[in-house]
Amino acid sequence: MTQPLWSKEQTIAQTELQKKITQFMSGGDVILDRELMLYDIQASLAHVQGLQRIGVISGEELAKITVALDKITKQFQSGDFVLDSRFEDCHSAIEWFLTNELGETGKKIHTGRSRNDQVAVATRLYCREALNELANSSQQIAETCLALARKHELDILPGYTHLQRAVVSSWGMWFASFSESFCDNAYAAKSTCELINSNPLGTAAGYGVNLRLDRDYTTKALGFNRKQVNPIYAQNSRGKIELQVLSSFKSALLDIRRMAWDLSLFSTAEYDFVKVGDDFCTGSSIMPNKHNPDAIELMRAEYSRLVGAYNEIESLLSLPSGYQRDLQSTKGALLRGVSSALQCLQLVPSLLKSLVINVSKCEASVDASMFATDKAVELVIEDDMVFRDAYRHIKYNYQELESRKAIDSLKERVSPGATGNLFLSEIEGRLGAL
Amino acid sequence: MTQPLWSKEQTIAQTELQKKITQFMSGGDVILDRELMLYDIQASLAHVQGLQRIGVISGEELAKITVALDKITKQFQSGDFVLDSRFEDCHSAIEWFLTNELGETGKKIHTGRSRNDQVAVATRLYCREALNELANSSQQIAETCLALARKHELDILPGYTHLQRAVVSSWGMWFASFSESFCDNAYAAKSTCELINSNPLGTAAGYGVNLRLDRDYTTKALGFNRKQVNPIYAQNSRGKIELQVLSSFKSALLDIRRMAWDLSLFSTAEYDFVKVGDDFCTGSSIMPNKHNPDAIELMRAEYSRLVGAYNEIESLLSLPSGYQRDLQSTKGALLRGVSSALQCLQLVPSLLKSLVINVSKCEASVDASMFATDKAVELVIEDDMVFRDAYRHIKYNYQELESRKAIDSLKERVSPGATGNLFLSEIEGRLGAL
Amino acid sequence: MTQPLWSKEQTIAQTELQKKITQFMSGGDVILDRELMLYDIQASLAHVQGLQRIGVISGEELAKITVALDKITKQFQSGDFVLDSRFEDCHSAIEWFLTNELGETGKKIHTGRSRNDQVAVATRLYCREALNELANSSQQIAETCLALARKHELDILPGYTHLQRAVVSSWGMWFASFSESFCDNAYAAKSTCELINSNPLGTAAGYGVNLRLDRDYTTKALGFNRKQVNPIYAQNSRGKIELQVLSSFKSALLDIRRMAWDLSLFSTAEYDFVKVGDDFCTGSSIMPNKHNPDAIELMRAEYSRLVGAYNEIESLLSLPSGYQRDLQSTKGALLRGVSSALQCLQLVPSLLKSLVINVSKCEASVDASMFATDKAVELVIEDDMVFRDAYRHIKYNYQELESRKAIDSLKERVSPGATGNLFLSEIEGRLGAL
Amino acid sequence: MTQPLWSKEQTIAQTELQKKITQFMSGGDVILDRELMLYDIQASLAHVQGLQRIGVISGEELAKITVALDKITKQFQSGDFVLDSRFEDCHSAIEWFLTNELGETGKKIHTGRSRNDQVAVATRLYCREALNELANSSQQIAETCLALARKHELDILPGYTHLQRAVVSSWGMWFASFSESFCDNAYAAKSTCELINSNPLGTAAGYGVNLRLDRDYTTKALGFNRKQVNPIYAQNSRGKIELQVLSSFKSALLDIRRMAWDLSLFSTAEYDFVKVGDDFCTGSSIMPNKHNPDAIELMRAEYSRLVGAYNEIESLLSLPSGYQRDLQSTKGALLRGVSSALQCLQLVPSLLKSLVINVSKCEASVDASMFATDKAVELVIEDDMVFRDAYRHIKYNYQELESRKAIDSLKERVSPGATGNLFLSEIEGRLGAL
Repeated sequence: MTQPLWSKEQTIAQTELQKKITQFMSGGDVILDRELMLYDIQASLAHVQGLQRIGVISGEELAKITVALDKITKQFQSGDFVLDSRFEDCHSAIEWFLTNELGETGKKIHTGRSRNDQVAVATRLYCREALNELANSSQQIAETCLALARKHELDILPGYTHLQRAVVSSWGMWFASFSESFCDNAYAAKSTCELINSNPLGTAAGYGVNLRLDRDYTTKALGFNRKQVNPIYAQNSRGKIELQVLSSFKSALLDIRRMAWDLSLFSTAEYDFVKVGDDFCTGSSIMPNKHNPDAIELMRAEYSRLVGAYNEIESLLSLPSGYQRDLQSTKGALLRGVSSALQCLQLVPSLLKSLVINVSKCEASVDASMFATDKAVELVIEDDMVFRDAYRHIKYNYQELESRKAIDSLKERVSPGATGNLFLSEIEGRLGAL
Repeated sequence: MTQPLWSKEQTIAQTELQKKITQFMSGGDVILDRELMLYDIQASLAHVQGLQRIGVISGEELAKITVALDKITKQFQSGDFVLDSRFEDCHSAIEWFLTNELGETGKKIHTGRSRNDQVAVATRLYCREALNELANSSQQIAETCLALARKHELDILPGYTHLQRAVVSSWGMWFASFSESFCDNAYAAKSTCELINSNPLGTAAGYGVNLRLDRDYTTKALGFNRKQVNPIYAQNSRGKIELQVLSSFKSALLDIRRMAWDLSLFSTAEYDFVKVGDDFCTGSSIMPNKHNPDAIELMRAEYSRLVGAYNEIESLLSLPSGYQRDLQSTKGALLRGVSSALQCLQLVPSLLKSLVINVSKCEASVDASMFATDKAVELVIEDDMVFRDAYRHIKYNYQELESRKAIDSLKERVSPGATGNLFLSEIEGRLGAL
Repeated sequence: MTQPLWSKEQTIAQTELQKKITQFMSGGDVILDRELMLYDIQASLAHVQGLQRIGVISGEELAKITVALDKITKQFQSGDFVLDSRFEDCHSAIEWFLTNELGETGKKIHTGRSRNDQVAVATRLYCREALNELANSSQQIAETCLALARKHELDILPGYTHLQRAVVSSWGMWFASFSESFCDNAYAAKSTCELINSNPLGTAAGYGVNLRLDRDYTTKALGFNRKQVNPIYAQNSRGKIELQVLSSFKSALLDIRRMAWDLSLFSTAEYDFVKVGDDFCTGSSIMPNKHNPDAIELMRAEYSRLVGAYNEIESLLSLPSGYQRDLQSTKGALLRGVSSALQCLQLVPSLLKSLVINVSKCEASVDASMFATDKAVELVIEDDMVFRDAYRHIKYNYQELESRKAIDSLKERVSPGATGNLFLSEIEGRLGAL
Repeated sequence: MTQPLWSKEQTIAQTELQKKITQFMSGGDVILDRELMLYDIQASLAHVQGLQRIGVISGEELAKITVALDKITKQFQSGDFVLDSRFEDCHSAIEWFLTNELGETGKKIHTGRSRNDQVAVATRLYCREALNELANSSQQIAETCLALARKHELDILPGYTHLQRAVVSSWGMWFASFSESFCDNAYAAKSTCELINSNPLGTAAGYGVNLRLDRDYTTKALGFNRKQVNPIYAQNSRGKIELQVLSSFKSALLDIRRMAWDLSLFSTAEYDFVKVGDDFCTGSSIMPNKHNPDAIELMRAEYSRLVGAYNEIESLLSLPSGYQRDLQSTKGALLRGVSSALQCLQLVPSLLKSLVINVSKCEASVDASMFATDKAVELVIEDDMVFRDAYRHIKYNYQELESRKAIDSLKERVSPGATGNLFLSEIEGRLGAL
């Protein structure tokens, strides 16, 4: 391990206890930090540009540091520079590299900066990118669902409440429901992005510094909407922002959970409404007959990772103001939750396109009872019964219900959004406005 | 109990088992529904106005129902109509009242509507109001904090990291941090409100109906931004929206938790930085000497109620599409979380105004070590040392550090947002823009 | 409101703010405390008996207090004494009653006791009783399931993995699975009861008192296994014990969640394996055709209440040692979780007995593929193929699989615990040993 | 990647989509499985021994497999056999190794076994070991605390409630509280171990097999207390058992959280009661003056990992009976929670021994008000006042309170467990009985 920034020198060999403590405290940081490294480099560049603007470093020094940061970027991307247990974390690795590369000039990088705002800004950039990817994935899912809703607009699907057959529905309505929900999910991701897109760089350890840092410059250079003004708030945002980001992901994955549940049920032998593409299925180690839609189940499970990550972070956050080391534990949970959720979301369009609908089985599953509600409304409109009486009339004269063509029922359900009137153009409009 | 809407008649006495089942299934709904009653009446009115517009009921019938809904509103508000165990829930109580009052006309209220969209729309109106109150409370806290930041701009407060003394800070910076965070909280509440402010009325049981309901009218009448187009999505939103609402509350209460922790610490005998107003304190049953800041601790605890409510709802949401009775269990948790959080937030401005700061103790708690960081930066600027060397120089020549006047350090910290440069006008600008 | 124990006198009218604060701080305590009242009286009696044994009160005083405690018990049970907003909580209500009844003697009740250990002991007695009821309910469920496993030992039920048909199973095995799991649940409840069955009374505010309290006596009088020795630990147990109790309930309700899921699926039109008794079903407000197994869904949802209660308490517990007011917020969550879970568990035996199994539909749902695994093992035993080759042989020569009688497959599955060998006697043995 | 057990052959190159799906579905299994590998080998040996006992494989085959399993054990331990992305998981890796090593004989390993019971039994063995280590660590902490309680029996420590000074306490009582609580934690770990120590091997995919497996033998060979009889229950235990294990860890880590909070407070400049050993502290990147007790804060944070792991698993568990792929996601959370918690617990004894108590600062922090409760009791005993009057007398004649020697107050608090009467022998007795 290189010498920690805060220590004198790596004097003597660590005792066994010290090794265990180091291991406990580092907590795999260097592995996790591989996700944050490039964001930290980006923010470090903005920081030194800002220092040059207020005269703390010279234009020549800035040029050298810029070259060196470019070099570590390339080496990191190519695998020539590996973030490993030689370093405490990515933050000290960068300072070490600059100092190794540039000598005295490298030692200037941390002027007017603390690891606290350094971590905060790298994490913020990561979160912003994560939310952008969430918005993109959500839009793609919404688009895929919209196209599939059009394609299957009049394909019958029994509609359930309480898992009991209720009324006739359609695959068009089913796909449209996820198209609309993922419009909302994209919108929510963008709103959260707007909320968190503020710059904590320049707040130092949580109390500012005795330098007139050019925070407006770094804010602009890093593409933030505004600076996060208050240094205490910048530190108190740790965890709060992570939870807001994970909340946005949760909304999307919650809908995936519902979708996966539907597909899990609909692909049982008993329902047999749909077949999931082979790529998304596996077999069993003991039962030669099995063809299991594992990917569906893992998508349903994916929400749980977010629950774990979210609750882990939340459980840390009963603390007074100011940085506490507890907050470092937010990192692993955030990265774990985000990367796993994005991986899942990116597979959804392919999954949906792989579905093969068993139209005849869907139609065969519509029974006469499912027209009862339509009939009750007809008694109101055509026979002038009051609704509650019409309802009771059907309920207790059930045997009178005649079967109908499901497709007719589908088309007659014309309330806005219903099977005969999906209002896909309105959903398309929302999608376009994102 | 009155006859459930879906049953034939309340024929014979319930068995002991049936009573237990009823009790298990009703789950205190009529008590909870007292919070939703007025929203349901409001939405019921919009529903019948919509029915009249499409010719399902006559203008005369609409007039009668309007009068009856007005009557039940007044009786409910005055306590003359009590929502109690005679009813299954507020939804059936309203239909019962109308039928009792108007006979056949009353039985028309449920035409083209299901309890599913009825519950959804009443809950949505409740959530919208809750978020508006959250935004208002957050703004009030932000304003109070801004005024207090101005008042205490140069009052010393030691700044901590790891609960260890770090650098000099100020009460001004402390209050400003909460002012900025509650601007964000108000903004987040408004964003979430925009996200959820869509109309589920007219989606029936989750599959629409065979009537051309005028959903654009009800959307406008109820002040929604847009209709929630898809009926399946309207049902699948149950729980999802509740979680989004509670998430917004959590952001605010998380900041209150930090604030309460600070005040809890700062009001110990050991810190003794601040005294909480007597109104917010109590004594002990056994120890005559105690004067305990109970309200602070309960504010710190308040976040937990939201955690409970949020996790309770989330744990329900592993279900296929469509209404399932499980979803009814979201109600208690939502109402419990929201009402308790609002009660807490509304007390915060008074609490903050009740604080009496012990200026001299705060100043006395600044020791020489807290100027080390300032000194290191000075060595960079004035003595042309590179930062990392300046840092090490101080660290290992600690005894050389001279004490300073804390107020000077305060004023010299001029990085934007820091004690010498709180940028309150920028926070005020954000507050004004809300 | 009566005068708080710790205040001088209820002098003047409360301001609006004070009323709001009082409301915020009392948090419905007097309502919740109705559940704890009798436990508190019981512990109060033990406390004064202990005081008499060490000479702090006289035998005569003890006799008077005993009579008065008996009186308040009877009045409380009959409804003549109502715990309402006149009181801060049940603890002060009891002291108020005794003082009102006995004058000076009543004021002695709190000698050597704090509300802190008073709350702790009442809660402990409540928890012990809750765990006993959990153990009883679990045993009843295990017994019911065992009887039903015997009854339906050879009734076919398709066996699923990934919700896909796997191999032939039986209702006997299904019922037996819950019989064994509820043996474990009963055992776990008893273990937890043993763990928590220690006496915190006599630890005062968390630091003991300057009296030689006879804690061994009160421990025995209240039926505890041991005293909780350390006063700090007695306070630090708040929340910890509540979580342990709720954990035990969770194990049971988690199994109920699985059971409810099975029944929810099996009672769909698509599976149609079982009919849930009418008492456990309801109808719809709009759809005349619906007959919904609501009780099943609410039982599935019940676990969520425990999740809410558990997480609410857990979220409070990031605190230093010693009593903090935050801990009072554990009460509502505990009571809510326990009472609701017990109500649910007590309905389960009746629900299970109400099930009507559709034997022919179950049998008809067994298809030839479900014998593939049996066949692979037969190829190993009878044809001397190695297993992996046998497995592959079947997998790729699927069409060769002949259908069999499901009942034969059932009987041939003789591995211990399997359908042909349910080992009910072993489960019965565990049940007997509880 | 080697060919999955359930597939025909690794025919052609995977498409990009297939690679992404594989990556999504494998979820890092081979890395996680390094923790389970040896347990799986151990259970595999028992399984083949059982097969030999019922004549499915010969003694000679058993001997060969035993040698091969021994070989893979040694190669795995030495690092010569690496579990990497060539394999789907450790379970298929073992079968691959045996088949590669032994040809046809290797293909017999999976006779009468499914990956479902194979995973279950390996996980069970892991959980049992984890609980044993938890019990051991808990005992060590209890012992360390007992010794330190003896050492510091009469060292003053102010006692707090609401973080406000309450009465005099001692470091002896503080250490004793954790000694007693870790006795309970060790007991709870053992109880949970007893609860889960049952054998799922031989239940196959969750429905048994058509072989008379000798489950009593494998139960004994693997050191289980009993077999888990029912195959459905064996599968339904997944997640349930993981939660029970994590619950046990939570009890211990919750106490560590309290301990860490105390130490975090007590080591602030304001309290200054104790100094944490240098090995457990670090510095700051920007502030030369900082000496931060990071390890303490990370110990406080450790509970959160368990919260994350626990909630992640719990959130998966809303499923019907039988294996679902969702359950595989329990693995990462379990391993993450357990390993991190054990690492933390093992450091606690060293941490506690490193504490240096600032006796004079502790004594100086006792003020006159802290004798108020003692005085009230004295008024009862010596002056024959009734308690509530004595309490009020002190409360309103506060100025009369004289200061005392803290050590006298300490000794006079003789209620069992209190500072004058710590009852360490009783705690020692419990510790011995574990």
